[in-house]
Amino acid sequence: MKRNIKLTIQYDGSGYSGWQKQPGRKTIEAELMTALKKLLHCEILEIEGSSRTDAGVSALGQVANVFVDTPIPTDRMAKAISKYLPREIVVTEAVDVPDDFSAIKNTKSKMYRYSIYTGKTRPVLEINRCWHRPGQLVIAPMRQAAEKLIGEKDFKSFATAADKRASSIRTIYNCRISQEKEWIYIDVEANGFLYNMVRNIVGTLVEIGRGRWQPEMMDKILHAKNRTAAGPIAPAQGLCLMWIKY
Amino acid sequence: MKRNIKLTIQYDGSGYSGWQKQPGRKTIEAELMTALKKLLHCEILEIEGSSRTDAGVSALGQVANVFVDTPIPTDRMAKAISKYLPREIVVTEAVDVPDDFSAIKNTKSKMYRYSIYTGKTRPVLEINRCWHRPGQLVIAPMRQAAEKLIGEKDFKSFATAADKRASSIRTIYNCRISQEKEWIYIDVEANGFLYNMVRNIVGTLVEIGRGRWQPEMMDKILHAKNRTAAGPIAPAQGLCLMWIKY
Repeated sequence: MKRNIKLTIQYDGSGYSGWQKQPGRKTIEAELMTALKKLLHCEILEIEGSSRTDAGVSALGQVANVFVDTPIPTDRMAKAISKYLPREIVVTEAVDVPDDFSAIKNTKSKMYRYSIYTGKTRPVLEINRCWHRPGQLVIAPMRQAAEKLIGEKDFKSFATAADKRASSIRTIYNCRISQEKEWIYIDVEANGFLYNMVRNIVGTLVEIGRGRWQPEMMDKILHAKNRTAAGPIAPAQGLCLMWIKY
Repeated sequence: MKRNIKLTIQYDGSGYSGWQKQPGRKTIEAELMTALKKLLHCEILEIEGSSRTDAGVSALGQVANVFVDTPIPTDRMAKAISKYLPREIVVTEAVDVPDDFSAIKNTKSKMYRYSIYTGKTRPVLEINRCWHRPGQLVIAPMRQAAEKLIGEKDFKSFATAADKRASSIRTIYNCRISQEKEWIYIDVEANGFLYNMVRNIVGTLVEIGRGRWQPEMMDKILHAKNRTAAGPIAPAQGLCLMWIKY
């Protein structure tokens, strides 16, 4: 009998064409499907991943659910699947969930971290996991602007045009900016995200941090409900999906 | 007129066949030569790198010297060369040195760090820069054993057989072991190293940390002057060349 299993997955996305399987491309979902097939000796028709992370985006807390028919106890499954995965992908947890659990629909909130390195010299050991943007960013106005994002709002200005979701209204619970030496981290927690939303927010906050725009610009951008009003998109490799709450 | 330039180089060695150029292989030295040729429009016959780091080994402070004939001021050279290098290699500093300066012969001491991750789940974001060795290692006996390595000694037991250097006597100035949560760092500073010496020392210290051997075993291993007396070699990707002093 098939049972519904919730998987928590970590990956370094730098060598991958994103989460979602695409013909002829190396993707996280495809690797996971291959690993499950090898482990369970059966065809896996569908894995439901909560976030369709883009090419180059990493994750420490991606969540997916999958229906499987196997005698393997759930508490041994994370380790068993991981043996069949490439070294840059790992399943950290597997738990039984009710049949009606959906990794997408049951999401309460999720948090992304965006990492920027502001030092002059490119950080070779972290180059695939950050945006190397040399030059000072002033944090105080970035924080002021970030405050304006909190709450239930229409984030249409931060959605790349390809987004086909019906509504562009989301609730951002937190948008925290922290600094450690030459590193800046932007943590955004929301009940859901539009296509490229975090990267478009980061690109906008950087325009404010470098002094091109005042923090008040954020109000105008939100009001415009038009992608062209916001700043440029930040590169994918700085983004990491940290956790998803259910 | 040719002048002698000392370069400090950082690299993520995980996708490379080591420092030294080899026909048909991707190496750090070869990339550096290609970058210099592109920048200076001349053939670079030789780069003298202080450490011939192995395949998979990274560096934050490799040093090399090279004779070049160029009008580019030395203080602009690091940035200029780096533009022609792949993103996982960077030149952080270039300075003029006397013609008789040799990156190899003038080395006073160098320091390598070896990183071990002891947690259960493989650390996907750092997997190319550590030895993932799940399970507890007891630090106190490892430190006791590390103390025994300090000083001028014959380290023949820690040299892989391929080492052809005349003498196996070196001086270790420091061998410090530190711990941060599930990470263990082994820092070894010496006036020079034999082939695979740090990785063979680390493999031996791990045997002591996991309780297979007592710290006193280190005396016997040093005394044996035979590679088979020591522990297994630790994997390359945990090793990073931190700095070189002149």
